[in-house]
Amino acid sequence: MKPRILVIGGLAAGPSAVSKAKRVNPNAEVTLFERGEYVSYGICEIPYYIGNVVTNPDLLISYTPQKLEQAKGVKVKILHNVEEIIPRKKKILVRDLNKNKVSEYSYDKLIIATGSCPRLLGLKGEEGRNVFPVKTLEQGYSIKQFIEQEKPKKAVIIGGGYIGMEMAEALTKNNIQTTLLHRGELPMSGLEQVSREAVKETLMSHGITFVPKVKVREFRSDSTGRVTEILANTGSYPADLLVLSLGVEPNTELAVGAKINVGARGGILTDQRQATNIDTIFAAGDCCEVKNLVNNRRMYIPLATTASKQGWVAGENAAGGSTVFKGVIRAIAVQVFDLEVAHVGLSAKEAEDSGMDIVTEHIVGNSKIGFFPGNEQVHIVLIADKRSKRLVGANVFGKGGATLRANTLGVAIQQRLTVDEVAQLDLIYSPPYAPLWDPVLVAANQLKKKFSKK
Amino acid sequence: MKPRILVIGGLAAGPSAVSKAKRVNPNAEVTLFERGEYVSYGICEIPYYIGNVVTNPDLLISYTPQKLEQAKGVKVKILHNVEEIIPRKKKILVRDLNKNKVSEYSYDKLIIATGSCPRLLGLKGEEGRNVFPVKTLEQGYSIKQFIEQEKPKKAVIIGGGYIGMEMAEALTKNNIQTTLLHRGELPMSGLEQVSREAVKETLMSHGITFVPKVKVREFRSDSTGRVTEILANTGSYPADLLVLSLGVEPNTELAVGAKINVGARGGILTDQRQATNIDTIFAAGDCCEVKNLVNNRRMYIPLATTASKQGWVAGENAAGGSTVFKGVIRAIAVQVFDLEVAHVGLSAKEAEDSGMDIVTEHIVGNSKIGFFPGNEQVHIVLIADKRSKRLVGANVFGKGGATLRANTLGVAIQQRLTVDEVAQLDLIYSPPYAPLWDPVLVAANQLKKKFSKK
Repeated sequence: MKPRILVIGGLAAGPSAVSKAKRVNPNAEVTLFERGEYVSYGICEIPYYIGNVVTNPDLLISYTPQKLEQAKGVKVKILHNVEEIIPRKKKILVRDLNKNKVSEYSYDKLIIATGSCPRLLGLKGEEGRNVFPVKTLEQGYSIKQFIEQEKPKKAVIIGGGYIGMEMAEALTKNNIQTTLLHRGELPMSGLEQVSREAVKETLMSHGITFVPKVKVREFRSDSTGRVTEILANTGSYPADLLVLSLGVEPNTELAVGAKINVGARGGILTDQRQATNIDTIFAAGDCCEVKNLVNNRRMYIPLATTASKQGWVAGENAAGGSTVFKGVIRAIAVQVFDLEVAHVGLSAKEAEDSGMDIVTEHIVGNSKIGFFPGNEQVHIVLIADKRSKRLVGANVFGKGGATLRANTLGVAIQQRLTVDEVAQLDLIYSPPYAPLWDPVLVAANQLKKKFSKK
Repeated sequence: MKPRILVIGGLAAGPSAVSKAKRVNPNAEVTLFERGEYVSYGICEIPYYIGNVVTNPDLLISYTPQKLEQAKGVKVKILHNVEEIIPRKKKILVRDLNKNKVSEYSYDKLIIATGSCPRLLGLKGEEGRNVFPVKTLEQGYSIKQFIEQEKPKKAVIIGGGYIGMEMAEALTKNNIQTTLLHRGELPMSGLEQVSREAVKETLMSHGITFVPKVKVREFRSDSTGRVTEILANTGSYPADLLVLSLGVEPNTELAVGAKINVGARGGILTDQRQATNIDTIFAAGDCCEVKNLVNNRRMYIPLATTASKQGWVAGENAAGGSTVFKGVIRAIAVQVFDLEVAHVGLSAKEAEDSGMDIVTEHIVGNSKIGFFPGNEQVHIVLIADKRSKRLVGANVFGKGGATLRANTLGVAIQQRLTVDEVAQLDLIYSPPYAPLWDPVLVAANQLKKKFSKK
């Protein structure tokens, strides 16, 4: 008999999983369920669609349901909400949202890829028609449509993380005067102080009002169901448009209902094969916790790159293959107007929380030979473990290849190189592309000095 | 007594060595001898000076002799040619080229950093006043002056390696019609076929006449001592200016005279401490062979990055410290007009010559999300060892960060990662900077498939 593989969730990990499963076992009957209208799209591109960098919304979608079915030989059921997993019967209950009818589907292997949902404040008015999280394509389209139709003049963004940065730029490109309310002193809490200060300065120099240490207390709404004012400990902020970028939480309701184990950070626990505690059920993507290879701890790090790779692994194993996903170091970059900001590995705080004594260094290097036209400053912050001398984290910001330099450091972190070893890496020197001493080497050599002193 | 450390050669390794030696032992008396007029300058920037990318020639010099003396507390003797090393007396004989007088200098430790010299064809006319290698700052200034004063219309470059590429662009920027004569079928013999074809196409699309399979037979000169025509097996080529870029050879005459061991590739042999077979004498830079960490073989790979690092190590050890330089993977990039070309690790041929069976893959990826404005194609060629599955070499070419992506692969090669491990690297995805699957990952995943088939 043909093995039946069911996958719940159609965004990133789900499409990866169905494609891989079908490729590994072409006899398998593979079905994807998605409660929304769209599958296989790029969430991360939504701010760029809103900001008119990408003008054709169709481009955000890698595969329509039809295209995914045809290209991969799988079944795709959109507007189908999985309501329950019944592991002892190896069945799921699915509501067809068009017909409002619940059906049973049997599986041999099940893959949970239910993703994440945006955090909310739980305040009255939050569901107002000018209030938007930025998590689904539907929300992206709604924001765009709202801007085009209602031409808001003032926006408030609550939450100064990655999406907050991208949305600040996107709204500014729509000539909307934007205020960013953030709970911390500086934006982007995962980065080091100097990086966060650079981000704040960049925001402010591009006309964003950045308000630190904000606790939002209340939304004032008008009679049409729009939030018109945000009241906080720091003052009150009028808004025609309110964007919520408070981070995300794993969607684990279904999994928890089926007695699948979740971890301390709220995500589904899997082994390296992406198998859950129930041996016919796998999980992948934003609904899972993931092992951080730098400190060997489970963390909640929802990222599309991880979701895609985990989807592959879950799909391959569900289809009878045998492969593993070992973990992540966390590798992220964000564009803050003209500032490139990248982060790999642990933050100083995370390293300390992992029991390390840390040594850090901040340097400013050149992106190419200093006197070359187009040379840009590249800042690097390195974080090392004092005892082992291992590099455990880095921020890279500036212009001219911060992100790609962070990847070089990322591989070094993943390979557990010491600062000495990073300082001796054989990196390219070529006047138009990199100076004789690449900023990566300058940073490692400076940090080395701090060790020899101690 | 103060230890006396003498360093021969003032270009890259020499200045590194004196600076480090003095820093490690501030009591040392450190002296640098350079036979030319300049020290501590960037050879690699010379083509960009000739091509008017860098217009101020002073910028090419990191340290004037005076500045080096003041900044580092060392003595610098330019226009001093070391003529002999007498190891049993720990002395060198040095000719002051101004006074034409030979003096003796005693050392406790000696560092040889005599660099390399350009290969020549040994043909009559080669010393003509319109014939230039591109190896010293003096030569760079001479070419520039020649172009400004004599306004050549046609140039011939002999040799299609890195410097040949850079000079082709530099001459074209001076509106000089340029013909490149190369002994091979395609330029840049260290790269793979597909990369070399891309380089050739780029040259031709920018108006360079590329002539393959050339054996130069004769130079025709006029009565003023200029070469006017190059005769070869492929035809005859008129020229107002002739550039020789045939590669370089280690300068080891002095070392050989002192019975210092040189290797099969002609360079000085050192241990990891950069010590030669004579225990008071160290060597660093282009005059040395270097261990390639990928195949553990000694090779001749003259590069400024290596020279600087080896100079540091030689300087530190000569001053009583203890440090090592482990070797290189070879990491190079060159700009060929608008094409970025980078090379890390072994070529396919070198890998085969090292006894490996190889598997290769060529992919074309995107520099950022494919539909983003400014997205560029990035080509990656990977070379892996069939038995161990280790990645041993890579070419990266295209636009939009080829060089910096090559560094990521370079670290992977240096760390002896398998293709599977490269495919699972945690690299950044950020729409403006890198696609969900970075070309590095796309390449590794494609190459993986070739292994599973076998």
